[in-house]
Formats: sequence, C-alpha cells, structure tokens
Amino acid sequence: MPESIPSTCPPISSPGATPAYDDLAQRSRRAWRLEHLSALASWDQAANMPPKGSEARAAALAEVGTLLHGLATDPALKLLLGCAEKEPLDDFQRAVLREMRRDWIANNALPSRLVEARSLASSRCEHAWTTQRPANDWAGFAPNLRTVVELAREEAQCLSQATGLAPYDALIDRFEPGMTSAELDRIFGDLRGWLPELITRVREHQAGEVVLRPQGPFDRAQQKQLGKAAMALLGFDFDGGRLDESPHPFSGGVPEDVRLTTRYLDDDLQQGLYGVIHETGHARYEQNLPRDWLGLPVGRARSYGLHESQSLAFEMQLGRHPGFIAQLLPLIEARFGRQEAFAPENLARLLTRVSPGLIRVDADELTYPAHVMLRFEIERALIGGEIEVDDIPELWNRKMADYLGLDTRGNHRDGAMQDVHWPSGAFGYFPCYTLGAMYAAQWLATMRRATPNLDARITAGDLSPVFNWLRDHIWSQGSRWTTPELVRRTSGEALNPAHYRAHLERRYLG
Amino acid sequence: MPESIPSTCPPISSPGATPAYDDLAQRSRRAWRLEHLSALASWDQAANMPPKGSEARAAALAEVGTLLHGLATDPALKLLLGCAEKEPLDDFQRAVLREMRRDWIANNALPSRLVEARSLASSRCEHAWTTQRPANDWAGFAPNLRTVVELAREEAQCLSQATGLAPYDALIDRFEPGMTSAELDRIFGDLRGWLPELITRVREHQAGEVVLRPQGPFDRAQQKQLGKAAMALLGFDFDGGRLDESPHPFSGGVPEDVRLTTRYLDDDLQQGLYGVIHETGHARYEQNLPRDWLGLPVGRARSYGLHESQSLAFEMQLGRHPGFIAQLLPLIEARFGRQEAFAPENLARLLTRVSPGLIRVDADELTYPAHVMLRFEIERALIGGEIEVDDIPELWNRKMADYLGLDTRGNHRDGAMQDVHWPSGAFGYFPCYTLGAMYAAQWLATMRRATPNLDARITAGDLSPVFNWLRDHIWSQGSRWTTPELVRRTSGEALNPAHYRAHLERRYLG
Repeated sequence: MPESIPSTCPPISSPGATPAYDDLAQRSRRAWRLEHLSALASWDQAANMPPKGSEARAAALAEVGTLLHGLATDPALKLLLGCAEKEPLDDFQRAVLREMRRDWIANNALPSRLVEARSLASSRCEHAWTTQRPANDWAGFAPNLRTVVELAREEAQCLSQATGLAPYDALIDRFEPGMTSAELDRIFGDLRGWLPELITRVREHQAGEVVLRPQGPFDRAQQKQLGKAAMALLGFDFDGGRLDESPHPFSGGVPEDVRLTTRYLDDDLQQGLYGVIHETGHARYEQNLPRDWLGLPVGRARSYGLHESQSLAFEMQLGRHPGFIAQLLPLIEARFGRQEAFAPENLARLLTRVSPGLIRVDADELTYPAHVMLRFEIERALIGGEIEVDDIPELWNRKMADYLGLDTRGNHRDGAMQDVHWPSGAFGYFPCYTLGAMYAAQWLATMRRATPNLDARITAGDLSPVFNWLRDHIWSQGSRWTTPELVRRTSGEALNPAHYRAHLERRYLG
Repeated sequence: MPESIPSTCPPISSPGATPAYDDLAQRSRRAWRLEHLSALASWDQAANMPPKGSEARAAALAEVGTLLHGLATDPALKLLLGCAEKEPLDDFQRAVLREMRRDWIANNALPSRLVEARSLASSRCEHAWTTQRPANDWAGFAPNLRTVVELAREEAQCLSQATGLAPYDALIDRFEPGMTSAELDRIFGDLRGWLPELITRVREHQAGEVVLRPQGPFDRAQQKQLGKAAMALLGFDFDGGRLDESPHPFSGGVPEDVRLTTRYLDDDLQQGLYGVIHETGHARYEQNLPRDWLGLPVGRARSYGLHESQSLAFEMQLGRHPGFIAQLLPLIEARFGRQEAFAPENLARLLTRVSPGLIRVDADELTYPAHVMLRFEIERALIGGEIEVDDIPELWNRKMADYLGLDTRGNHRDGAMQDVHWPSGAFGYFPCYTLGAMYAAQWLATMRRATPNLDARITAGDLSPVFNWLRDHIWSQGSRWTTPELVRRTSGEALNPAHYRAHLERRYLG
C-alpha cells in the first residue's frame, strides 16, 4: 500500500524556517547511515569474506540497495525539492540543494524498465566476459556488448532530456559533473598533439639506461609494515582507518573509517608499495572531507576525476619525486637490507621507466594517458552512433599502433576486452583517469607558485606544504562547488593540460 | 504518514494456499538480510574498527536497529499471525509460526514508554558502572541499579501478562524459551545439595598435586596459528568463517560466515587457545544450522543455554578430554617446542585445576556453577520483590562464604559489581551458563550410550562420533522444537543434573 504523497509544501512555522530543506537533509543523513553499512559490507567482501559467505552477503547488499533506491526515488522528493528551492536558503544550503537536485535527476530520470534492462544486460555481459576474455572470444562477446551499448545510448538520451546536456555529456556527468565532451575534445585534442611524439622521444632518451630490479623474495609481513610506514609518512590517520589486503587494491569504507587495501607480490616490492601510496591519496581526501557536512551531498568527494587527482598526486607527483624517494629509502632498507637496486638514482629510473604495453592497468605514467585517450575516442563515437561495436577492433588496432606503436591485431583479450568498464555500462568513466592526472599536475604547479621552495622542502622531508594545500583547497571543499568552479577557485584557471605536459617533459626529458 | 493497516486476511487464491504465512515468511527473510549487515558491523566494531569510526558506526547500527524494530512492530503483523494460524499449515510451518508468535510477543508486549525508560536506565547504569566498578563505589551504583530493577520488574509483569508465564519465568524465557523458575529451582536445588561439598573434596584431593605452568612468552602469530590448527581439528569450516582478535572473545557474524575472535596473552597459552576452542563450539552450531531454514525463525539456534552447551561441549567436555589433550600436544610443540609443562598429564592437571576465586569469568569448570547459582538465587528474589538492591551485598557475602569459602565483605568491585548483566537489565540470563554446562554433560552421556567406545575413539583421534551426534541432534534442528522437547528428543529425558554431577565427579575425583 503506497503512502499518500503530499501535494503542498510543508508549512513554514516561523520566518526563515526551511522545513522542506530540513526534511531533505534528514532524509540525506538517513541514507548516509545506511550507506555506511553497505560500504563496510563491500569492503569486507573484498578483504575478509570467506567464499561461503558470498550468497548471503549479496542478498544483504541487495536488500540495503533496495532500501536506498526506495529513499532516492521516494515520490515525495520531487515536491520537497521544489518547495526547498523557494525557501530562504543561504549559499551553503543552496549548494546542498544543487547536489540533491543532481542526485534526484540521476536517480529518477530513467524509466524503471530501462534500469532493469540495463542491469540485466550488463550483468549478463560482465558474467560472460569473465570467461570470454581468457578465451579471446570476441565473437561471443560482441552481441552482449551491443545490447549494453544500445541501452547506454537510450540511457544517454534519457539523461540528456533530464539534464539538458548532450547525450554523451550526460553519461560523463555521472562521474565528472560539469565536464563536457567539448571540453574533453579540447583536452584530448591537445594531448593527441604531443603525447605520441613525447613517448617516442622519451623511449629514445631512456634507451641506453641501465635499470636494476630489486631482488626478492620480499616477506609479505615486512611489505605490510613498509606500506604502513609509507602511509604514516603520507599522513594517513590510523585512528580513522586501516590497511588490509584484497585481490585488487582499493580505498573503501567511509570518511570516518577509511579502509585501504593493497596486494603484495613476493618478488615485486613496487606493486604493493605504490598501490598503498596511490590508495593513501584517495584515503586522505576521504579522511579530510569536512566532518560537519558528512551526511549531506556536499560532504562527498567532488568527482571521480578529482578523487583520482589525489591518488595520482600521491603516487605520481609526490611518490616519484626524488625528494620523496629519498625518504622511502631508509624505510625500505630497514626491512629488506641494502641492495644496489635500492640506490635512489636507480629507484628513480625504475619508477619512471617507460615501456608501452597492451594493458592499461599495468601502464607507466607516460603511456597511461594514451590508453585512456584511445578509449575516450572510441566510446564517444560509440555512444554518438558514429560507430558500432563491430568497428571497435579495427579502431583499437589502428590507435594502438598510432599512439603506442603496438600491434594488437587478433588479440581481443588484451585489447578491447581487457577492461570491465564497457561490459558494465560505465561509459564516460575512462576520461576521469587522465583528468585526474592533469588535475594533479595542475595542483602541483599551483603549489609551486604558492611555495617557491616546495621541491627543496619535499627533499628536506617536509611534506606539509603539499598536504596543507590539498587540505585547504580540495579536501575541505567536498562538493561545495561544481568541478569547473573548484578548479578555477583552486588554481586560478580552468583545467589546463599544459601543466601536465610540462610535468611529463620535465620528469622524463628534464 | 502511516500506511493503512489491512483489517481482513489476505485472500486465498487457491486451495492449500497460505498467503498470510507466505507474507510473514517474506518479512522474516527481509529482516534476516538486514540483520546480516548489523551482525557484520558489530563484529567489525570489535575486531577491526579504529577509534574514530565509532560514532558513525553507532549511528549506522542505530539506523538499521530502528528499521528492524519497525519491521518487528509493524501493526500488520498481528492480523497476519492470526490469519496464518487459520491457514492449512504443515508441522514445519506451524513451528515457524510458533516462533514468529514468540518473537511478536517479545517485540510488542512492552509499551514504548517502558522500552524507552528501560533503555535509558540501563544505559545510564552501565555507563556509570564502568567508572564506579574500579572505584568500588556501591553507594553510587545502587540507586542506578534500583531503577533498572524496578523497570525489569515492570517488564516482567508485562511479559507475564502477554505470555501467561510467571514474571521471572517471562524474563528467563527471553533467553531460554520453555525454561521455568520451578524447573530452575529443581536444578539449582539439586546442585546446591552437592556442589559446595564436591568443591571441598576436590580441593583436598588436589592439595598435594604439583602443576607446572608453561613458560612464555608465546609469540602471538604462532598462537594464532595454533588456534587455527585447533579449529581445524574441531571441524571449523574456514570457507565459511574466520578467526580474528578482539578484547573479549566472541562468536559473531552470520551462520553463512561465522566470525570468531579471541585474544592472546604473551605469557599464557591457555587463554587464547581455550578461548578459540570455546568459540569454535558456538561457531559449529551456527555453521551447521539448516541452510534451507535460514531467514525463518526456526533456522536460528535454539537458545542461549543450548548455545552455551555447544561451546562447553567443546571447551570442557572435549577440550579437557585426555584423548583430545593428547592431540593438541603436537600442535603446541610444533610451535613452541618442548617443555616439561607440556607433558599430557601435566596439561590435564593444569586444565582441571580447581581454585575458588571472586571472579566468575575467571572461574574453573567446577567453581563456575557456584557463581551462577549465587546470581540466580539473588536475581530471582530481586525480581520477585523478596529482596531489594540494598540487600544484595550481604547476601553475596554469605553465599560466597557458603559456596566457595571466600570473604567478599566490602569488596563490591569483585562482588555484585563484577558483571554487566544486571546493570544492562539482562535478568534471567545467568542461569543459561550452567544450563549449558548441564546440557553438555547430558549430550556426552547420551553419546557414550550411543557409541560405547566413544572415549577410545576420541583418544584415537576420531572426533567424528561427537560431531555427527551434535550435528544430527542439535545443530540441524535449529529452533524446530521447543527447548524441553529438543532435550527429550535428543537424550530421551528432561534436563537431568545427575549427568553433570557424574561428569564432574569422574573428572575431578575419578
């Protein structure tokens, strides 16, 4: 039996009262408390859960998911949002309401028939993909992906109508609010102009280098201690979070209790350690979101791209800074003794070694954006209807040859079938990775202007200027501003790939 | 806006249909899925959570608690239960409905004013107790406890009216359904007749014994490996559960994914190891509850006493069996080398050393029931109005002198203030500990009748007759039968303290 839906705004009891806004805020905090359980259960699923717990866990997560969906699609919300917009709100409350409206559109723009069909199609495609990928079975995969793409196009149309954005922009907006494909065209257009050539030059530059690999095995308990020491160096608050292990590293939990995971390899120190450093960037963003705003949508991290900018500021900007590597060194040697390969100059060479490869997640800093650019170009055309699923392999081969000089013909497994994003319907997500890298470069450039001796201080072991700047300009801002607004307030200009280019040229050719 | 409450039974669509029962079963499964998240979050709180996660976790647990309370007190349940009782249910469904009715009474018998007052009073009493206990501040504690007792009496009256049980029986029934104070009088009356004298005789018997204590320190990582080896020996399914650490050992999680915890002391092997063995008894009960019934109330473990009978069957009956100790020995020596104290005869003496003390949770197998008997006698008189809170210290002193020969005068901290049960309002809980020990003895006696060479098989390393019997007779039965019915079906007689007495006499004087 449905509750009856109110048709008039809640009464204003006194001048300045904001009953509709207050009601919405209370609903938001309630959802936040339930999301806490969902986040914890998802982390546990990856980090702790034994196999036989799987079915019951999935059912429990689905149950709370249904509850949250019910809260997000409650018919009363539409009226309350309209009422609240007429209430005497201050600027902060207006920002809260702006984000609530965004959420409401995202949660209510799609007909439930489409939501269901999409969920079914991506489940089927993802599930089959787990066996089709190792079998290199493009012919089996393509029909499933075709259905996913058709539904994503439909979704893009619906979201476009609800938001007023262009269809592919409406998909991007789910992950990177405020970003448009026109802006992405500008950014990736710029990148395409100099990246392939830069890769070639850097490879020539590095051709004669001798790089020693540290010799394992590296005890995993010691690797974990090393990871924790690096986290401490990077300011992770262990009173508000933990480090555990999972097959794929991630940063989960809730801002009040961040759960990082990494994985350790016996013979490779870098994977576990730099996994931790990357996730610590995500974690510090979460740990430093404004406490008083938690439970309201402005208390969330701004976007996927912004989040990635934090992990990459840690992993790439700071983590590969010679001054930081020098600080890691005693932590490594305390646990694994001395090796020639641990010499700072060798570590720096190891951590900046450029080597084009087929797999995005294994890519180095310099070739990674080429993988993203390729995917952006293909998915943009796919959603726009300019190409079809059957056109992907040929385009993939051409772009991999152009950007990275690699031959991928016939190798679908390590080609368009390597990522879960498309099978799961997450079109619009890929650009965030490179946006994150570009934001991170822009933040560091801004910090260097604000603190002219920044590099000397990092080298002297003082990371506080980095942390303070990130805290004041990014972490503490939550979703108070739209992304373009935040970028401008923070760095004085719109996203500018020139900083990224300068960073790469300086690091790899400087 | 409340939903309108249906006033007629759901229509029967076809002969034999049971729509009200089906609706109730669906509601039950929904609550089960939410309880999963609550159980996981509670386990994590004790085993993993860093301090700053506390506030958000409490709020999240309260939120799901409110949701579950709403489901349990939904006004539609009353009608549905009445309708289902008239539906053509089979015996199994009748048992489900019996348990649903029990739950409904427990959740709806108390006026919300009383629920709130009780929660407030016990929170206040517990909170103050945490500082009053170390300060031995009985004068400060007594007024708070008085309020808790008054509300517990009121609660007992309400539950009594709803169930038709006597007031204290109605409190017991929350923990040990079907157990009455008349039955407890019989059982503890029997115990009082022989226990104090048996303790005296055993102490004389053990007076001349030399017992060596194993010399630590014992590496904690090795202790954890030892605990896991013991769990494996005891049939714990690691594909459906884990072992972690927490300040107080417990068995949590859900039947599909049982989360055990223990704590390790550097200089005492026994605490960590026997903590694990105890909790493994609880765990195997949960892991072997009938899968198909999970989500329905018959799928739950039967009672607190029955649960304790499993942990004590493992910790006391099996865990201190000479044949089992002999199997532990190589596991211990593999990790900690040889010590004279590890000799099986010495370990057996160590594990059966009787030493009356003030603290219940530190008590040995033989003196433990004296602690429980004392508390049962006092709380029974307290709820019955025969005594008041101010009478407790004198009664405590007298009974501790009578039962254990100890002087507790003026020592409230290690007297009536030592347990959290009364401050938290859990009257009726204490008897379960000794009921559990008695059930466990009765199960072993029954197994010995069914498998005459049981002890020889345990000594030969074959524990399967024990596990098979427990699985077939206890674990697989869930809450299909009432407790007295289960005891009779399982062992052919009502709970009979003679088995417990025979076990103790044989072990401690035999």
